Amino acid sequence: MSTAPTRFTVAEIANRFGLEVRGDPSLVISGVGTLAAAQPDQISFLANARYRSQLATSTAGAVVVRKGETATGSGSAPTWLVAADPYVAFARIAALFDRGSAPSPGVHPSAIIAATARIADSASIGPFCVIEERAIVEDGAELGAHCHIGPDCRVGAQSRLYPRATLVTRVCLGKRVLVHSGAVLGADGFGLAFDSDHWIKVPQLGGVRIGDDCEIGANTTIDRGALEDTVLEEDVRLDNQIQVAHNVMIGAHTAIAGCAAIAGSTRIGRNCLIGGGAGIIGHLTIADRVTITAMSLVTHSIREAGEYSSGTPIQESRLWRRNAARFKHLDELARNVADNKKGHRND
Amino acid sequence: MSTAPTRFTVAEIANRFGLEVRGDPSLVISGVGTLAAAQPDQISFLANARYRSQLATSTAGAVVVRKGETATGSGSAPTWLVAADPYVAFARIAALFDRGSAPSPGVHPSAIIAATARIADSASIGPFCVIEERAIVEDGAELGAHCHIGPDCRVGAQSRLYPRATLVTRVCLGKRVLVHSGAVLGADGFGLAFDSDHWIKVPQLGGVRIGDDCEIGANTTIDRGALEDTVLEEDVRLDNQIQVAHNVMIGAHTAIAGCAAIAGSTRIGRNCLIGGGAGIIGHLTIADRVTITAMSLVTHSIREAGEYSSGTPIQESRLWRRNAARFKHLDELARNVADNKKGHRND
Amino acid sequence: MSTAPTRFTVAEIANRFGLEVRGDPSLVISGVGTLAAAQPDQISFLANARYRSQLATSTAGAVVVRKGETATGSGSAPTWLVAADPYVAFARIAALFDRGSAPSPGVHPSAIIAATARIADSASIGPFCVIEERAIVEDGAELGAHCHIGPDCRVGAQSRLYPRATLVTRVCLGKRVLVHSGAVLGADGFGLAFDSDHWIKVPQLGGVRIGDDCEIGANTTIDRGALEDTVLEEDVRLDNQIQVAHNVMIGAHTAIAGCAAIAGSTRIGRNCLIGGGAGIIGHLTIADRVTITAMSLVTHSIREAGEYSSGTPIQESRLWRRNAARFKHLDELARNVADNKKGHRND
Repeated sequence: MSTAPTRFTVAEIANRFGLEVRGDPSLVISGVGTLAAAQPDQISFLANARYRSQLATSTAGAVVVRKGETATGSGSAPTWLVAADPYVAFARIAALFDRGSAPSPGVHPSAIIAATARIADSASIGPFCVIEERAIVEDGAELGAHCHIGPDCRVGAQSRLYPRATLVTRVCLGKRVLVHSGAVLGADGFGLAFDSDHWIKVPQLGGVRIGDDCEIGANTTIDRGALEDTVLEEDVRLDNQIQVAHNVMIGAHTAIAGCAAIAGSTRIGRNCLIGGGAGIIGHLTIADRVTITAMSLVTHSIREAGEYSSGTPIQESRLWRRNAARFKHLDELARNVADNKKGHRND
Repeated sequence: MSTAPTRFTVAEIANRFGLEVRGDPSLVISGVGTLAAAQPDQISFLANARYRSQLATSTAGAVVVRKGETATGSGSAPTWLVAADPYVAFARIAALFDRGSAPSPGVHPSAIIAATARIADSASIGPFCVIEERAIVEDGAELGAHCHIGPDCRVGAQSRLYPRATLVTRVCLGKRVLVHSGAVLGADGFGLAFDSDHWIKVPQLGGVRIGDDCEIGANTTIDRGALEDTVLEEDVRLDNQIQVAHNVMIGAHTAIAGCAAIAGSTRIGRNCLIGGGAGIIGHLTIADRVTITAMSLVTHSIREAGEYSSGTPIQESRLWRRNAARFKHLDELARNVADNKKGHRND
Repeated sequence: MSTAPTRFTVAEIANRFGLEVRGDPSLVISGVGTLAAAQPDQISFLANARYRSQLATSTAGAVVVRKGETATGSGSAPTWLVAADPYVAFARIAALFDRGSAPSPGVHPSAIIAATARIADSASIGPFCVIEERAIVEDGAELGAHCHIGPDCRVGAQSRLYPRATLVTRVCLGKRVLVHSGAVLGADGFGLAFDSDHWIKVPQLGGVRIGDDCEIGANTTIDRGALEDTVLEEDVRLDNQIQVAHNVMIGAHTAIAGCAAIAGSTRIGRNCLIGGGAGIIGHLTIADRVTITAMSLVTHSIREAGEYSSGTPIQESRLWRRNAARFKHLDELARNVADNKKGHRND
């Protein structure tokens, strides 16, 4: 861990990321902050128009703004760095100040590694990790404490598993994959057949394949496939507590917010955005560039890009109860309206 | 782990499971696959009518079909094994090819076992397991790495806990129970009393009882009871990330899909099917053989078997917004319709 | 662990908690139970009017009732303890019988503690705990087995972490905080910027601050902030499997039921009650004393105290399907009603 403070001039930052400076390029920046809270030695950003009013009053030393920003500053206005996409530029600048730990390579003496497992010399294996038969950990991969790598799993180069990540069986991670704490990849899919009076288990013989640059949130679960694999293409981003059932396929660059759930064998396209708590039932196909809003339930395939929703709006329970009661008779209501219309026409 | 390939002739498979053969009984089968992907030395199955068109083109060597299947094969048609329930038959056949690990009995030297705990000689306890006071692990039970068995817990014979399963306090598992990674059984129920200006905790003095042949999914949570136990009868099947609150009772053979949540003291009948993401509020009674569709919310007891739903259908957000806005005034709309009707009658 | 049975007379209990006795003050009580199941040496309570009919038939030796309770007992009626709030009184009485483990202070020899971490002498650190750089564990704190305390975290005095609780990075717990098994606090917030054709990660430089007397349920996740901290004020109570995204703020005494999810930067007031499975989208403000019913989705800020809901009622799927189909055309229906009304007026 570095303890020396990280410092850059505005000019250094601008050069590194190809940004235009309006103001004082010699200003020294030692951190990042929100418009509301950043200090004179910190840099902030304006990406969302509703925070524009904070631009004039911010005490940030510098602010990343969008090309074409027209706000007029006061006398104490901060220095601007002008970017085509201020949020992207800020993400890169903030990374300069992210003093992440860089564990040294090697296997902690408390870790337990099967004889048939292969661990790259440049990988870092934390305390109490367990790595089982035929598992592979590639160059530069980092496993935090208490990680479990089950049989026939592979952790790709430069991937990082946070403490207590679990790969159960036949899970293959690409390069630079992040898996957060408590995530469980490669548990049995939920496959059951009802045999006259009890359930029998359908063996789950497939695995899980995770593409390069994916991120898997804390306590998210991704089951392994029944016969073929559950697959995430590259750069899929999953938030916390998401459930991905067996044989799901998720296309590249799709991002899914917390607590969403995808049932078995559904295929989600590329560049989709799935809102928090949304559900998609099994055996469906979702096209590329589909957005599903929060807590919507998808019960049929979606063939066209676009935004889709279900549900009803929040309102005072007193009013909601009356409306909800009417919903139970909505079909009858619609028939009455049709009758009224007809009756009226016949007058 | 067996590394020798598993092989059976069609005749051997048919004999073992009482299936009728149409085609070549001497064909050697060395694995299972989907109709779309199975190879000539593999066996597949047709259980869902919408995949019937794949029967003619499948390169599978053999296919399990339903009695009465009438599809006419081509010249290269695979051998059929005819079953009353092809999915059940396939589940059993697939189990022949499931080369699961069979850990040897014994306690890994890194495990920490309380002096008052009792571990059967035939049980297998993995690395870094912790087994606390008065816990019991019975014959043939398997605990993967990092499992935690808290005080006064019991793991029944032949049960299997995957790595990182946690039984907190007073959890009793029957025989042949499966608990997947990250599941937490026996944490405190969420019992609080508001004492004028702050919450006080209601002690959770009960336990959790899980019947024989139950399965508990990854990262699922089952809280222990406040005064009596939280109970799952035999052969209850829970998928991943399900929440079962304190004092819930779930009847035998009920299956619950991922991310469903059952609030405190609710009683669910036998042979129910609860869809993914469904919610059931507390203190309700749900009859036997009730199906709840995905993401429905149950707010009153259900006395009759049948299928129940709530929610609204997914549609383009542009259209959905208009309809959702109208929902907020549905009661008024219904009153207007009633008035119109009345007005019309009075003409 | 105490193995001697805990016993109190009714008079002792009444004195301790300031309750009035009606009946036999010398009765010896050795446990607690429900009205339906309590034995003659146990005490029960009546807080919910719908259980009043059980009062006459209960075999409990004593029952805590509300001041003004008018039920007339039979000859064998139990002794009453009269309380202003029977549930609060019962919670306190039950705590007398909660024989919780009290681990002895000290660090288990299998735990791994960074040289720069500071552990109070009176703290108890369980087997296989890992405590990283600059972490602090204060007086009387208890860490169960397999807990992970990441860099720059602090566990406040008398806090208790159950087995397998995880504090990832920069998490500060107040005093007397409970964290249940599988909870993950301080993982990266889900911050992403889309850089023309792929996601880049927005560094999450903030932490998590949890106030005194909070409780965090099993497998709940609380992400750390992007620039500032994610904050729970004192006495916030979170059930299991709740997702709290980065930069959320939750006011004191708010209680949230299982599986609810709060998206990034939302501020929830004090003394709110959020139902199970409810969702609140990002960047909203929720006033004090707001109740959200189960599985409702909040999509705009709520400025007034009160109870709010969304969704539709559960009904038989056969009927629900018809109503749901009509919902897709509700706007059109409303227009027709308006037209009918107008047409009718013009008759």
